[in-house]
Amino acid sequence: VGSFCTSLWQCYFEYSTPKILVIRSFKVGTLNRFTQALVIAYIIGYVCVLKKGYQDTDTVLSSVTTKVKGIALTNTSDLGLRIWDVADYVIPPQEENSFFVLTNLIITLNQTQSRCPESNSTGFYCTSDRDCRVGLRDTRGNGVQTGKCVNYSADVKTCEVWAWCPLEMDAEPPVPPMLGDAENFTVLIKNSIRYPKFNFNKRNILPHVNTSYLEHCVFNRITDPDCPIFRLKDMVTEAEEDFQTMAVHGGVMGVQISWECNLDMPSSWCVPKYTFRRLDNKDPVNNVAPGYNFRFAKYYKNGDNQETRTLIKGFGIRFDVMVFGQAGKFNIVPTLVNIGAGLALLGLVSLIRLHWTYFYKAPF
Amino acid sequence: VGSFCTSLWQCYFEYSTPKILVIRSFKVGTLNRFTQALVIAYIIGYVCVLKKGYQDTDTVLSSVTTKVKGIALTNTSDLGLRIWDVADYVIPPQEENSFFVLTNLIITLNQTQSRCPESNSTGFYCTSDRDCRVGLRDTRGNGVQTGKCVNYSADVKTCEVWAWCPLEMDAEPPVPPMLGDAENFTVLIKNSIRYPKFNFNKRNILPHVNTSYLEHCVFNRITDPDCPIFRLKDMVTEAEEDFQTMAVHGGVMGVQISWECNLDMPSSWCVPKYTFRRLDNKDPVNNVAPGYNFRFAKYYKNGDNQETRTLIKGFGIRFDVMVFGQAGKFNIVPTLVNIGAGLALLGLVSLIRLHWTYFYKAPF
Amino acid sequence: VGSFCTSLWQCYFEYSTPKILVIRSFKVGTLNRFTQALVIAYIIGYVCVLKKGYQDTDTVLSSVTTKVKGIALTNTSDLGLRIWDVADYVIPPQEENSFFVLTNLIITLNQTQSRCPESNSTGFYCTSDRDCRVGLRDTRGNGVQTGKCVNYSADVKTCEVWAWCPLEMDAEPPVPPMLGDAENFTVLIKNSIRYPKFNFNKRNILPHVNTSYLEHCVFNRITDPDCPIFRLKDMVTEAEEDFQTMAVHGGVMGVQISWECNLDMPSSWCVPKYTFRRLDNKDPVNNVAPGYNFRFAKYYKNGDNQETRTLIKGFGIRFDVMVFGQAGKFNIVPTLVNIGAGLALLGLVSLIRLHWTYFYKAPF
Repeated sequence: VGSFCTSLWQCYFEYSTPKILVIRSFKVGTLNRFTQALVIAYIIGYVCVLKKGYQDTDTVLSSVTTKVKGIALTNTSDLGLRIWDVADYVIPPQEENSFFVLTNLIITLNQTQSRCPESNSTGFYCTSDRDCRVGLRDTRGNGVQTGKCVNYSADVKTCEVWAWCPLEMDAEPPVPPMLGDAENFTVLIKNSIRYPKFNFNKRNILPHVNTSYLEHCVFNRITDPDCPIFRLKDMVTEAEEDFQTMAVHGGVMGVQISWECNLDMPSSWCVPKYTFRRLDNKDPVNNVAPGYNFRFAKYYKNGDNQETRTLIKGFGIRFDVMVFGQAGKFNIVPTLVNIGAGLALLGLVSLIRLHWTYFYKAPF
Repeated sequence: VGSFCTSLWQCYFEYSTPKILVIRSFKVGTLNRFTQALVIAYIIGYVCVLKKGYQDTDTVLSSVTTKVKGIALTNTSDLGLRIWDVADYVIPPQEENSFFVLTNLIITLNQTQSRCPESNSTGFYCTSDRDCRVGLRDTRGNGVQTGKCVNYSADVKTCEVWAWCPLEMDAEPPVPPMLGDAENFTVLIKNSIRYPKFNFNKRNILPHVNTSYLEHCVFNRITDPDCPIFRLKDMVTEAEEDFQTMAVHGGVMGVQISWECNLDMPSSWCVPKYTFRRLDNKDPVNNVAPGYNFRFAKYYKNGDNQETRTLIKGFGIRFDVMVFGQAGKFNIVPTLVNIGAGLALLGLVSLIRLHWTYFYKAPF
Repeated sequence: VGSFCTSLWQCYFEYSTPKILVIRSFKVGTLNRFTQALVIAYIIGYVCVLKKGYQDTDTVLSSVTTKVKGIALTNTSDLGLRIWDVADYVIPPQEENSFFVLTNLIITLNQTQSRCPESNSTGFYCTSDRDCRVGLRDTRGNGVQTGKCVNYSADVKTCEVWAWCPLEMDAEPPVPPMLGDAENFTVLIKNSIRYPKFNFNKRNILPHVNTSYLEHCVFNRITDPDCPIFRLKDMVTEAEEDFQTMAVHGGVMGVQISWECNLDMPSSWCVPKYTFRRLDNKDPVNNVAPGYNFRFAKYYKNGDNQETRTLIKGFGIRFDVMVFGQAGKFNIVPTLVNIGAGLALLGLVSLIRLHWTYFYKAPF
């Protein structure tokens, strides 16, 4: 036992080192130093400067609220002169990270639950009641068939349906768009962000922005880059689209707010960067089902307590606000890990050289 | 100083290499080659083929719009024969990545702000006015108590409340669901994606899909895998649920669209993959508060300018569209990093062998 | 050729090992063992225990539904005594991961499309018709100018506009908030999660929670930590805000549900953790555009089929439910990778020592 203990003790202090040959060679020495320089350059240039390997990082936590302002005026035979304000054209009135602005519409007034001839575009033509099937509800149709064949117009007969009548006209949306005035609407986007790891909060209304400036400013990349109020047309133009064209069929716009922050620098350097792009694909060769529209209704009761509704097929632009960001701050742990990995790499260089030397001298 | 310079110069060209013993041994040589083969297999098989280590990757940016189509017919004593179309059953009319389809409902017509006896299910029974407290608003109750005790039915008295009266009947939702027809509704899901790093755009309406096909097609995993129009029942069935059962209490469905793309291949190989699953837990042993429902109201004014409303407790299925995806494309940087790491690993093999040899020959 | 084959065969069984010097030195031996101990401590302590390097991880997939309950009573000269229930104060009635509760409001009754003098706060004062421009629609204004100058009050004249008249009073929201009762509203948050990689499902209504408990319980960090029903005031208080103050101008609250699960442990240990924080920045020095409000309207038709609306500027609290989480479970692949990396590091130690020894003995 005593001998084993001595052995163990000796082993503890023992270490092995290879026998080293020190060789002076211009060729191999230069290669050696060059590889070392490469590794050091990689560590300093790529790991430290570009990737900021000495920093701990955190991703952004964000909250967005939006407020649209503006008035549009339409003049149609159906509605007469009509004003549209924010309560009329933003649907639904609030969403989490998104807002929708109505830009064009097909309106059908005074619909009631009743019977009317099916629209001719659905293809339910008939000559007698036998061509119509009671209770048929087809996805192409607008209601449930009553089994009767009735006059759609003077010379066309279609199956009668039980539906919200009169039916919506199956038409292309008006050009120019009815709420073309929407191009001058403005939206205030309030965005508060937080980097939880660093307990860092900021919002896109920067400290130097005061109430009087906010009341009249409009975002402009050159003159007003800090104003959080955006004109809808400007956003669409920055995405290289034409507002009036886009407004006809609607679409989806992305408002990207980027908060790339180096928190080793003064916190006032951490500012949002706005970019705008169209998100739905406007592919000219594959122009199936373009734009963005949906149907909604306003319900009324008339004098006889009967329910009537106004159906609106609304075309418009949905703005999705997307907040991205990563913040970095000096932290000892990633610094050590990266320095360690760098040293290891440096060590490996000589190991690889060793191999290389060996293979170089291998018997074939 | 001259001597130091010479020293430094010599040092620059100097390199050290361990003295190497070349040994021929069947056992250790085989082990050596086997380990090297293992590492090379790992690098080629796992890093290159499986993990595609030679590619740079990017995550998907997505925009989703949906459009539901279909007609349902209900026939109740309250409402009579009634047609439900998209403007009636999709609430709210538009959302960002989600849509809700009403499948069942409890309707309370002609509510007004007035006084009525509290519902008996809330437990506010009383025998005299002293049992009721003026102004009490309990979370179980439906209104603010007026302090009176009134007849709920011929033999039951409850506290009177100031509320929207008549109160909603506290009942289980009807079976079968009122809008059971919803199983045949279809939804067109338009999904545009973008991989910003590779400037790659695509949408789920593939180039070969034309308008006439889109007008009648319905998604089917075998016959129509490229049709972006889904029948609600098919989606629920694929998630191994029964539509009519789910429709009674409502629920949440996930529509997962996966865009895993290898952009080194032709872009036409990059196609969406659809999967469907139920997201809310339908746990049979823990069936507390099942399904998905919410209350909403339609407001009217009657002849005397008094506000009345129709309260609807709507049960239905919310479809959350979730878009996942990662694209990869050849890039020199990750290729070099991975080859480097592979070589390093190869180097380490001999290092570990060296250690192993040493420990093997250690004194114990 | 035969000679080359023999050569290759010999090479296959050949391996090289450096000549090793075994040195006994207290100083270097201790340093050696200390470094090895450090690396082993790092592998066991940091990689295995802290980072759980032997586990495969997955991020959470979540579905959230919410249901608010409660009654508020307001008494104003405009509306008289009025009850507000969930269908009145939750707008829109359903959202994906969010719900909004109205806490304060400025109401404008019986608006119609007509003409009225512009509000004095917009600054459109005039003395004669020449000061007003026909058709001017300014973002500050409430309508389209008709070109007339009319009496706003006895001594102030403003330009007339075509708008929804009467215009909304431009006033600060009432203090105390009209729906201050909202502090006692409760919300049931149902959250189902899934870790797809491990096929693990759970919901925040834990198995031991039964219906009778759910009917009366309210979340309390100490007494009822498993109850998924939250009182609004409690959530705001936990975020160190005052409900009545926040209710005046509105705001955005984050409800964070964290599901950090170690699936090597019994699944009953995997429970949600709730935290609450205010998301919109309530910065006292930079108090521009505080709170959260939006406008919405209810549309009516009066006896003459003319459209009227009630405009509501609603202030309130939006609760964003955010679900985070990562689950880990033992998996052989990351275990091997981490053990391998650990061994490699151990190997590097001796390599670095080797270098260090060499540099230590370098000629300068």
